[in-house]
Amino acid sequence: MKVSIIGATGYTGEELLRILANHPETEIIHMTSESQTGAAINSIYPHFNGFYDKKLDSMKELEQIGAASDAVFIGLPHGHAMAAGKVLAQYDTKVIDLGADYRFRDSKVYEKWYKVEHVHNDSGAVYGLTELYREQVKTATIIGNPGCYTTASILALAPLAKQQLIDTDSIVVDAKSGVSGAGRSLSLNSHFTETFENLKAYNVAGHRHTPEIEQALTDFTGQPVVISFTPHLIPMSRGILSTCYAKLKPGITAAQVDEAFYSLYQSEYFIRLLGRGGYPATKNTRGSNFCDLGWHIDERTGRVVVLSAIDNLVKGAAGQAVQNFNVLFGLDERTGLMQAPLYP
Amino acid sequence: MKVSIIGATGYTGEELLRILANHPETEIIHMTSESQTGAAINSIYPHFNGFYDKKLDSMKELEQIGAASDAVFIGLPHGHAMAAGKVLAQYDTKVIDLGADYRFRDSKVYEKWYKVEHVHNDSGAVYGLTELYREQVKTATIIGNPGCYTTASILALAPLAKQQLIDTDSIVVDAKSGVSGAGRSLSLNSHFTETFENLKAYNVAGHRHTPEIEQALTDFTGQPVVISFTPHLIPMSRGILSTCYAKLKPGITAAQVDEAFYSLYQSEYFIRLLGRGGYPATKNTRGSNFCDLGWHIDERTGRVVVLSAIDNLVKGAAGQAVQNFNVLFGLDERTGLMQAPLYP
Amino acid sequence: MKVSIIGATGYTGEELLRILANHPETEIIHMTSESQTGAAINSIYPHFNGFYDKKLDSMKELEQIGAASDAVFIGLPHGHAMAAGKVLAQYDTKVIDLGADYRFRDSKVYEKWYKVEHVHNDSGAVYGLTELYREQVKTATIIGNPGCYTTASILALAPLAKQQLIDTDSIVVDAKSGVSGAGRSLSLNSHFTETFENLKAYNVAGHRHTPEIEQALTDFTGQPVVISFTPHLIPMSRGILSTCYAKLKPGITAAQVDEAFYSLYQSEYFIRLLGRGGYPATKNTRGSNFCDLGWHIDERTGRVVVLSAIDNLVKGAAGQAVQNFNVLFGLDERTGLMQAPLYP
Amino acid sequence: MKVSIIGATGYTGEELLRILANHPETEIIHMTSESQTGAAINSIYPHFNGFYDKKLDSMKELEQIGAASDAVFIGLPHGHAMAAGKVLAQYDTKVIDLGADYRFRDSKVYEKWYKVEHVHNDSGAVYGLTELYREQVKTATIIGNPGCYTTASILALAPLAKQQLIDTDSIVVDAKSGVSGAGRSLSLNSHFTETFENLKAYNVAGHRHTPEIEQALTDFTGQPVVISFTPHLIPMSRGILSTCYAKLKPGITAAQVDEAFYSLYQSEYFIRLLGRGGYPATKNTRGSNFCDLGWHIDERTGRVVVLSAIDNLVKGAAGQAVQNFNVLFGLDERTGLMQAPLYP
Repeated sequence: MKVSIIGATGYTGEELLRILANHPETEIIHMTSESQTGAAINSIYPHFNGFYDKKLDSMKELEQIGAASDAVFIGLPHGHAMAAGKVLAQYDTKVIDLGADYRFRDSKVYEKWYKVEHVHNDSGAVYGLTELYREQVKTATIIGNPGCYTTASILALAPLAKQQLIDTDSIVVDAKSGVSGAGRSLSLNSHFTETFENLKAYNVAGHRHTPEIEQALTDFTGQPVVISFTPHLIPMSRGILSTCYAKLKPGITAAQVDEAFYSLYQSEYFIRLLGRGGYPATKNTRGSNFCDLGWHIDERTGRVVVLSAIDNLVKGAAGQAVQNFNVLFGLDERTGLMQAPLYP
Repeated sequence: MKVSIIGATGYTGEELLRILANHPETEIIHMTSESQTGAAINSIYPHFNGFYDKKLDSMKELEQIGAASDAVFIGLPHGHAMAAGKVLAQYDTKVIDLGADYRFRDSKVYEKWYKVEHVHNDSGAVYGLTELYREQVKTATIIGNPGCYTTASILALAPLAKQQLIDTDSIVVDAKSGVSGAGRSLSLNSHFTETFENLKAYNVAGHRHTPEIEQALTDFTGQPVVISFTPHLIPMSRGILSTCYAKLKPGITAAQVDEAFYSLYQSEYFIRLLGRGGYPATKNTRGSNFCDLGWHIDERTGRVVVLSAIDNLVKGAAGQAVQNFNVLFGLDERTGLMQAPLYP
Repeated sequence: MKVSIIGATGYTGEELLRILANHPETEIIHMTSESQTGAAINSIYPHFNGFYDKKLDSMKELEQIGAASDAVFIGLPHGHAMAAGKVLAQYDTKVIDLGADYRFRDSKVYEKWYKVEHVHNDSGAVYGLTELYREQVKTATIIGNPGCYTTASILALAPLAKQQLIDTDSIVVDAKSGVSGAGRSLSLNSHFTETFENLKAYNVAGHRHTPEIEQALTDFTGQPVVISFTPHLIPMSRGILSTCYAKLKPGITAAQVDEAFYSLYQSEYFIRLLGRGGYPATKNTRGSNFCDLGWHIDERTGRVVVLSAIDNLVKGAAGQAVQNFNVLFGLDERTGLMQAPLYP
Repeated sequence: MKVSIIGATGYTGEELLRILANHPETEIIHMTSESQTGAAINSIYPHFNGFYDKKLDSMKELEQIGAASDAVFIGLPHGHAMAAGKVLAQYDTKVIDLGADYRFRDSKVYEKWYKVEHVHNDSGAVYGLTELYREQVKTATIIGNPGCYTTASILALAPLAKQQLIDTDSIVVDAKSGVSGAGRSLSLNSHFTETFENLKAYNVAGHRHTPEIEQALTDFTGQPVVISFTPHLIPMSRGILSTCYAKLKPGITAAQVDEAFYSLYQSEYFIRLLGRGGYPATKNTRGSNFCDLGWHIDERTGRVVVLSAIDNLVKGAAGQAVQNFNVLFGLDERTGLMQAPLYP
């Protein structure tokens, strides 16, 4: 399959390149960068010496790229992807957008949280959290690949939400991410000396992944869900841990909670259930497409606490994009994604 | 004042030494270690060259130490401190225990969570969270110095609890700590390669700082409080960030929340209020006795989120112990504690 | 091919498992651990969930293991591997030892530096620095896989040594390693809080990798070489950077230096030449079998400075072991080793 | 004493503020920043809440500042400090420049390495490596405060150079620094995800601290010295370790080497001699003005290896500046500099 990457020099683009280097069914025909058009990708990322030496193209040739590609991955900032998607929609190519533009069924929600008008709201895009929306993904043309925090959080809460085991107004998601989630653009928040041996929250009560989690939980429970979501910046490069709290409905037993997880996920390769009492650690997922889940029942407070760990650049971005690609093209979902985590 | 440190070679003992090196009113007359009796403290901690070269004594001489000291700091594992405290109570010396043995008014709570019998439950010990229990500290003989997580969490929630602004059954405390909180004893969890670029929760629904937070919140609200508390291990050396969630009672306004913080803390030097919308960062407190607080109101969910940052070894341990010492002896509370945070 | 791993639970054993998980021509039939015999490997390393769930065997069955295996990798402490190797030598199996026991042609050198008697000095072992000893490796039965520092350092200096471009008594190797090189055994030096934001040298003028580098340089120059070698501990998990200094012989030109590197390595896949003026970075090799080389000529002092970066657990241990395995069995040398580096 | 800081918002300016907060003999009357004039210093560095809330002035008022100050610290980029120094020289104020402009007696050397014309080469500036140039410092008006790498390296080599124990053409200095040395300006090299778990050299054979080390060694040996100097970037915030190699002259004994160190430094408070066989660690100096030294003799190669650790922002910058200030004003050299290192 011929694939192209629009916006290849950010960390999600770079991670796609890493994964696709071991994907036996793909050939990358275009990678683009507007700021570094014409440069060789391995001059920007020398770790790719021996894998890639392709020159970066420009999005100005997007029509050609669309015409020549079986699939196009988009790694652009929100607001720009939908313009590109609209152009690509004219061609016989699948589109997998790693940004936010195609994640919301209700473009009003998107517009409220992202403060831009949606210009492609008849796209028919499908939300690509593979394990939970696989049937829709299979026949999609445009996929809105989920955010990193949202992947970890939705996978943690879906079993409980689908089985109606929790009070939906009691949900608190306290999430922690490595710095790679902030991308490669320079900022004081990503400056080594400011972030090293430091820890803080940001965007309390206003992070844009909040409505994405709510959309999924509303799907699963059949009623409008509003949650508290707090992201934190952790002094490490990769990894997200999402700690999710909810009150169990009266009478719900530990066995029912366990059953909710096992029945939903037991045949999912990329979901590893550590069981009740389990402690996922981000490092156990580093460089891999796994989501590790453990859950705990606090008898004293009547809450269930679900812990969810992923590599934010893999299952939280490029890995899940490739997983969706595999589903779209009828390949084994694990194709190109079978690297063991890098530990220690 | 003549002071002694029982258990001087753990990180809290070592941090006491660092702080007392700049305390103009103290002279350290004994420091003990059972495993390294006779060794010079600067052979164990070479960073103290130029400050200390004293030989470590043994607790076997505890009676002598008690008789000779105006104050004794105890840095022993729980269960051992109360035995030492019982001996020291016979002498005219103040005791500040940095462990858990003297933190609970109800020794049944202690025994339930710590699984040891309390042998000194008539000690009259006072809980030493200075800003909130200062009057009791002034006249105490034995002080139970608070835990690190608890200091950050109680300081965050006290204004809301005292003003009865929150539903007490809605409290979730999601706390994150650097690795120094685990001490200097070797373990796989503190092994560099296992912890670096890694992130995980531990002791969900069972951490021993939980009842300590509950005791204080029960004091402040006048009703039994049960909370969800989750600690996490962060790949850095020092620092705790506590993210505290609670539902506001109906009708409570942002102004009332603000007022609760300012009225309680505005004249406290070591509490720095970053205000509504503020983001404490652990690095801003590193090496200092400050607790930085910021709070956020989530209109969508009706929750208040309080963020609280401290250096776990200073305000969370040795610094607060010295603050209590200053209160006990009528000194300016800031004596020896005026170092600016070490940044970056 | 049927392969076994003796000593599978240290970091080099674990890294072998990671790499072999993607090796299409191998099946792991035994993995041993004396301290954890009977435990499942994924209970010790949960990141292997989904890859391995085999139970750990004991070395007590070494004879059976030898008889059943086409190749045996040994990840034991020095002194123990040669005893195992002696047993295995009776069987029709290749042995690749990742420790020091089979690295020295002159067992006197081994005995002097390692302070143990060599009990298998007629083994006919071959030194497995693949790019430089490939012909011998092809026909070997027992391979002494090189050390991590030595791999980086010898690859850096070999071109200059083989072309006789440098004064052999002027060589200084200043090497820096991540903490994973110290293994998984607990020690204060690998304790997170002691090592984080810390930097120090160790074993100055006495590190055991010194004679290994000298053996190779003596091979290449034809005269006895003695070097200064200083290892340093860097607060990161993986990666070695070796900074190698030598005086150029009078009249040697930059072009000759360049030519020495290109002629020796230009067709080596795993050696990536960044050229004169190039700056290898350990992160560009993380998780991969590459050695990145750059060199600099200091006109003012007449020295050449060669910089060499590897992942200590891959090219410096398990990766090179698999590379040697591939050579031994006539496979493409890159089999199982084509993962792109994990960046960032 | 009234002091001002020109360029207060970089890390060296910020570190001066931290140290001076505990200096009993100084009052800061002006702090300047051209990019953030008018902002309060604690809005830029919130860790200073409780210490400083002064507004930042502009250098446009430099004449007033000079007239009002007993001493002015300059924390400007090279090339800008000498212009400021020239203005300040008209006033009765001492000037301590933390940059390179006043470090070289021969302005030709400065101009060659820094590529700018020196506009104040009749300044009579004194090189402020306190322990080695104390007598000159006492009577100076303008002090060129040494660089961070140079402080560590010169202190390491001075005893050997002064006693003529080493071959001066054999000196190799391999130095490693934390990232704070690169300052607060944003760059990809200081971007967290690029630097974390990464290690590389930079500016091989061209770093500007080279001629500064050479100037001092030339002073001490009485003959022109040329050295190889290689800096490396280490994934930590603070700390420099300098590993210095030199050939001992024939016949020099270990006792002579020891004597060289002890005779020069035994009464220096800020130089801590760990002795022959000692291993300085940067963490033991963190936040303090110490330089820790250890030395090793390699009998096999005839080299001496000196290890030198400092905190680059303290003894390598702001701490030594304050030390020089103390000397200039006849204060105890340790005033304001007696904080114990922050460990762990």
